Amino acid sequence: MIKHYIIASLTLLAACTAGEKNSVVIEVPVPERLPGQTDMVAFAAEPVDTVKVGIIGLGMRGPGAVERMLNIDGARVAALCDIEPDRCDSAQAMILRAGAAPADIYTGSDSAWRELVARPDLDLVYVATDWTRHAMMGVAAMKAGKHVAIEVPAAMNLEEIWDLVNTSELTRRHCMMLENCVYDFFEMNTLNMARNGVFGDIVHVEGSYIHNLADFWDAYYDNWRLDYNHKHRGDVYPTHGMGPACQLLDIHRGDRMVTLVAMDSDPFTGPKHVERQTGMRPDDFRNGDHTMTMIRTYLGKTIHIQHDVMNPRPYSRMYQLTGTRGFANKYGREGYALEPDSTALGGMPDLYDLNAHKWLTDEQQAALVERYTHPIVREVGEIARKIGGHGGMDYIMDYRLIYCLRNGLPLDMDVYDLAEWCSLVPLTELSIENGSAPVAVPDFTRGAWNRVHGYRHATR
Amino acid sequence: MIKHYIIASLTLLAACTAGEKNSVVIEVPVPERLPGQTDMVAFAAEPVDTVKVGIIGLGMRGPGAVERMLNIDGARVAALCDIEPDRCDSAQAMILRAGAAPADIYTGSDSAWRELVARPDLDLVYVATDWTRHAMMGVAAMKAGKHVAIEVPAAMNLEEIWDLVNTSELTRRHCMMLENCVYDFFEMNTLNMARNGVFGDIVHVEGSYIHNLADFWDAYYDNWRLDYNHKHRGDVYPTHGMGPACQLLDIHRGDRMVTLVAMDSDPFTGPKHVERQTGMRPDDFRNGDHTMTMIRTYLGKTIHIQHDVMNPRPYSRMYQLTGTRGFANKYGREGYALEPDSTALGGMPDLYDLNAHKWLTDEQQAALVERYTHPIVREVGEIARKIGGHGGMDYIMDYRLIYCLRNGLPLDMDVYDLAEWCSLVPLTELSIENGSAPVAVPDFTRGAWNRVHGYRHATR
Repeated sequence: MIKHYIIASLTLLAACTAGEKNSVVIEVPVPERLPGQTDMVAFAAEPVDTVKVGIIGLGMRGPGAVERMLNIDGARVAALCDIEPDRCDSAQAMILRAGAAPADIYTGSDSAWRELVARPDLDLVYVATDWTRHAMMGVAAMKAGKHVAIEVPAAMNLEEIWDLVNTSELTRRHCMMLENCVYDFFEMNTLNMARNGVFGDIVHVEGSYIHNLADFWDAYYDNWRLDYNHKHRGDVYPTHGMGPACQLLDIHRGDRMVTLVAMDSDPFTGPKHVERQTGMRPDDFRNGDHTMTMIRTYLGKTIHIQHDVMNPRPYSRMYQLTGTRGFANKYGREGYALEPDSTALGGMPDLYDLNAHKWLTDEQQAALVERYTHPIVREVGEIARKIGGHGGMDYIMDYRLIYCLRNGLPLDMDVYDLAEWCSLVPLTELSIENGSAPVAVPDFTRGAWNRVHGYRHATR
Repeated sequence: MIKHYIIASLTLLAACTAGEKNSVVIEVPVPERLPGQTDMVAFAAEPVDTVKVGIIGLGMRGPGAVERMLNIDGARVAALCDIEPDRCDSAQAMILRAGAAPADIYTGSDSAWRELVARPDLDLVYVATDWTRHAMMGVAAMKAGKHVAIEVPAAMNLEEIWDLVNTSELTRRHCMMLENCVYDFFEMNTLNMARNGVFGDIVHVEGSYIHNLADFWDAYYDNWRLDYNHKHRGDVYPTHGMGPACQLLDIHRGDRMVTLVAMDSDPFTGPKHVERQTGMRPDDFRNGDHTMTMIRTYLGKTIHIQHDVMNPRPYSRMYQLTGTRGFANKYGREGYALEPDSTALGGMPDLYDLNAHKWLTDEQQAALVERYTHPIVREVGEIARKIGGHGGMDYIMDYRLIYCLRNGLPLDMDVYDLAEWCSLVPLTELSIENGSAPVAVPDFTRGAWNRVHGYRHATR
């Protein structure tokens, strides 16, 4: 783990005049790319007819993945791994019930996953373990010649992030983070509207993970999740907010994050959960109840991200978009607003009483969503809702992963998305630990962020 | 105006280790209090039987104030001032229609207001001019022995803020900012719930001014408002968000703001409004479309404030509260969430299916609001809705101002509230101009922030 952050550049301002631009920015080092190693932007691998999948981790997220893969053409669950044998048995039973060929099972020790990764016939290793094992397994899988898909967050610090980036670039294997929230229906349709100019220039986007985990803390193997919060300040779970926001802003597809600042509240509730488990209220619980991050991009757009898993609040990923021509919001009230002269509802003059101060009416909103339903949602939305996984988004995620691998297409999310979205974990901690100092967000593409213009889902 | 910010303290970190606490904080100078001058915390003046009011500025906000004062017992509009005579005539007609004694009129020049301020019989000068004249008029009124109430923001820079604070402390006259949004019904009732412990410890609060002014820009005298945005970065209109947030957090009543960080987007829309007016798109428009501020308090609470007057969005002041026992949100969806074992709905067992993950049902919410309706809302809510002014909150504001003056009570908002809420204008600009560097928020009470514990409305 990178313990000592070296600050590469720090401009001191001894005195400043309002109006002059000065800054004191913390920069973390960017390792040099090795000779012969090139970036993975728009990378596509050779097509695979049947994608043979090995799944590691069958606790909370793995079993759902098994079930979904059984419902996706061209996917075969060939190997299963969990430290606990009964979890493997349950997943195997699922496979047999579906009439599919049994998977090989790897279990019983903390290193059983290494045998799964080593077997030569797998195309894809699917990692659904706890946070701290994600990156290690991803690196090992790619070194063994497999593509890898890793649950969120795929990496928890800068060393893990750079390991994944470098290994992907070196091995020419896909390294995708399983960020499911970019596939939720409202997000997909809104992204499609954005790509079609409905919102004009996008100025500001928001996202968050606001989920009261009071009823869940005891369910994580070896208490890993509360433990992680106990030991770390910063936004330790940023990707559900970051994914949709960065896709809207074309991050490393024409724009990039430049500066980040974070702030947290004290830990008011976290220590109480430890006390409930152990009988003792700790005085070293580090993760603040409420963590906020502000990010500015090269093109002058802003992102706002929040994290609160402690306090009683309705679930929210705060998905929100402000553009020069329109506005979208998902949580609290799901809706849109458009400029009076918007043509997004063109051809529907009876719906044309738009007012930028007001939410669209239900009728207007339905017409807008119908017109701009994302092509992928049109294609697989129905089966996704049926198979499920957080209402269907998990299915669309796995479907797209298999579809792109089978067709030799770039995946929807590359290793730089993973790096950018996960980088908030260490960078917010760094900002907070330094009194909310601004931190420069590294260019994880190392120069390739402006080669592709506009986010897109690849299709045949 | 303070043009050169002197940075009183700046700790350089040349290298840092995650886990160590370092910071680079911009500090602005705090002028020393003059000998004999003391703070105004909990200050109460001598009671006034009939409050004789002089109102300066009869453009957008002044006429409503005249009408409200005509409907408040013990208030008399004794003097009116505007640079344009016809505005004075309209306000006078309102007074005569109400059967009240005519006011004296001061008009026709940029300095007519000085005569109003100088006349000896007024108790209160009520300033509703454009932003840039607020502080100057407030200082002059206090120096002439009057209490003063000033529209938002009452001060636009640190020199104006300190002038108002020092003049109030020196003259022992009230200096209240006319922040109406703290008097809106949802905010008042939620504040009452907070005071009664419904939300447990308050962890985080939000507020904003999100109001698309596209239809309003041309209505401001001499184009002062767009002009101000043209020339200034930062959150130039923060008080509608800050007022309710700071009351919830007992700012300078047991807690205080310590650090602030701000960030803005580029100005995407602002320059287009100037182009529409002048035919030329300026390249020096400074106010970003979207401005965000994060603030941390001494007790480890956080505040988040936003400003966007440019883009098409539904109106929002983002009033939101996260506590360890409950949650409240006003815009988008108006509602509350409570811990399952909350006793806030005690005595209503049929309403007791609480779930911290979910919004209260309409029935639960109605019961909660009924139980915790703020006493002042119970007292004057009905007449406030009838007389109006942003749905009634303006009436409650003026009613409370007159009530407290007549009864010799501390006002609901003192000069330090004014200072704290307005300080975001210069301090966010300072942070943004320095690459989102953290800025220390001065203690405008100069040591008295922890003497009173808990925000309260004074009553007889």
